[in-house]
Amino acid sequence: MSNTNQQVRLAARPTGTPGPEVWEHTTEPVGEPGEGRVVVKVSHLSLDPAMRGWMNAGKSYVPPVEVGAVMRALGLGEVVASNSPDLAVGDVVTGLLGVQTHAEVDARGLQKVQPSDAVPPERYLAVLGMPGATAYFGLLEVGELAEGDTVVVSGAAGAVGSIVGQLAKIKGAGKVIGIAGGPEKCAWLTEELGFDAAIDYRNSDVAARLRELTPDGIDVYFDNVGGEILDAALARLATHARVVLCGAISQYNATEGIHAPANYLSLLTTRSKMEGFVFPDYAHRAGEAAQALSGWLAQGRITAREDVVDGPVTDFGEVLLKLFRGENTGKLVLRLP
Amino acid sequence: MSNTNQQVRLAARPTGTPGPEVWEHTTEPVGEPGEGRVVVKVSHLSLDPAMRGWMNAGKSYVPPVEVGAVMRALGLGEVVASNSPDLAVGDVVTGLLGVQTHAEVDARGLQKVQPSDAVPPERYLAVLGMPGATAYFGLLEVGELAEGDTVVVSGAAGAVGSIVGQLAKIKGAGKVIGIAGGPEKCAWLTEELGFDAAIDYRNSDVAARLRELTPDGIDVYFDNVGGEILDAALARLATHARVVLCGAISQYNATEGIHAPANYLSLLTTRSKMEGFVFPDYAHRAGEAAQALSGWLAQGRITAREDVVDGPVTDFGEVLLKLFRGENTGKLVLRLP
Repeated sequence: MSNTNQQVRLAARPTGTPGPEVWEHTTEPVGEPGEGRVVVKVSHLSLDPAMRGWMNAGKSYVPPVEVGAVMRALGLGEVVASNSPDLAVGDVVTGLLGVQTHAEVDARGLQKVQPSDAVPPERYLAVLGMPGATAYFGLLEVGELAEGDTVVVSGAAGAVGSIVGQLAKIKGAGKVIGIAGGPEKCAWLTEELGFDAAIDYRNSDVAARLRELTPDGIDVYFDNVGGEILDAALARLATHARVVLCGAISQYNATEGIHAPANYLSLLTTRSKMEGFVFPDYAHRAGEAAQALSGWLAQGRITAREDVVDGPVTDFGEVLLKLFRGENTGKLVLRLP
Repeated sequence: MSNTNQQVRLAARPTGTPGPEVWEHTTEPVGEPGEGRVVVKVSHLSLDPAMRGWMNAGKSYVPPVEVGAVMRALGLGEVVASNSPDLAVGDVVTGLLGVQTHAEVDARGLQKVQPSDAVPPERYLAVLGMPGATAYFGLLEVGELAEGDTVVVSGAAGAVGSIVGQLAKIKGAGKVIGIAGGPEKCAWLTEELGFDAAIDYRNSDVAARLRELTPDGIDVYFDNVGGEILDAALARLATHARVVLCGAISQYNATEGIHAPANYLSLLTTRSKMEGFVFPDYAHRAGEAAQALSGWLAQGRITAREDVVDGPVTDFGEVLLKLFRGENTGKLVLRLP
């Protein structure tokens, strides 16, 4: 192993939007894998809104990334050295590889995948990976989707939201409305993904549009953004509605307190629930979601789209910001040289 | 029927705290009961925080009280005229009788009760009535109380909260903490009702006290008050906690926007749910709650307390304000002459 491992480490905890000052680029020699471990040459890195939360100190659903540590990231790559009977050199795997070019990791934490002409590698970080499973369990289990439901999803052109809407249609939702930023994203939702309607939050009054589009209220609101959009959705809840809290990307970089949901008492008058969930609680069932989703993909009932950016690992910090600027459509992936 | 029916009607929708200007006192002759109906001479009126919501225009879980209509209220009284085979003169009943001295109502909406030396009539408007059932279904079904749970209840010295805490202890909660206003109420909770601890929100820092008292977080938070106390509880949620939204009395009279729960993202990081509920959804099962609660009452495992105010029906508006000032301990009832 003569290669050099290039790494991106968290240099400081960010205040607000994470600029270049929070990242440190380091290099290390690539070592030999320890017992039961492998070295993976990373080819694709997953960029996720949740990363912003991992950078903060304090209690959350996973420990924070320590200052000085390699940034946590899901990724995909090829095994280049193995000290585990479970994986061989040449196997392609996904898992928590970190923002680095070479990851020396426990083989038990990795999933073997088989990219092909039909299924590009980045898809295993998208609909066939964590975002797909997040949409699947969030909508069906937490959201308790029922036939005929009116479903609204924010961040609808993102990795999770774009699957939520399509899955809702497959599962018999009566009406699926996506909220996204800009006319291109909105057109993609209705023209290519089969959403019944889209609301461009940058160019329209979300509350007013929701009133028009949901005369009988919202049965499932799948929230990826928080803020004023969450409040607008709360004001439209039907009786016994389910609000799935999957994220709040509009609030992650807030420096002066977040936009709190002033309409939360709508949960009381409509007897609705608002429930948070994160993928790791369903990780043991990820195969179930991937199997179902790959079937619909093969049938053409789900359209997958990844937003692949080519660049060196040192571009990570800059590419991450595309998420917070709403510049990605579909799953954002950094493809390493 | 030569009696006169004295009534309290909603004269105008209130802004903020409802003063005397929102009430109109009227009198009508008491008529004969229609087919299937009875006339009830009202002896006890239930005063409930929910009444404030009924006075507002707009969509809620029940239609608003119309301006000009007799104010909606649960009450107890004796049948003085019957045109129904189901009820006889002399029967004592509870139901939606309205704020008036004589109610001409459908017999099917009434429950026959049997006050005795052991069970005073007002108790059927308290632990054996709507507040008891609210505590029962809210804690056990919405709150999904499990053995060993840390339970926190706000408005803990009120009609619902005082039952929630006692019920939690009976059902095996590990620790029960009540939040109430003033040292007398707090002493009542810990010394007479068996709460493990009480927090006097008027004289202490609720957030700091919750940090001390819930080292492992809160499993069930039963909220009757909203506002800053809800936020303090959200900050202490354990993993997979349940927040039962039963009321928000601190916010009902707000005129400049409510205190929105800025810590709502704690639901996401702890994968918890916040769910609203109201008694009417469980009204068909009220007998189940009353039966269980009356058993524990008879065994002395539940201590009941009603705050009975004697006065004419025209005192209703003034007595109602005791709720918003936090002046009642236990269930507030107006006993008519």
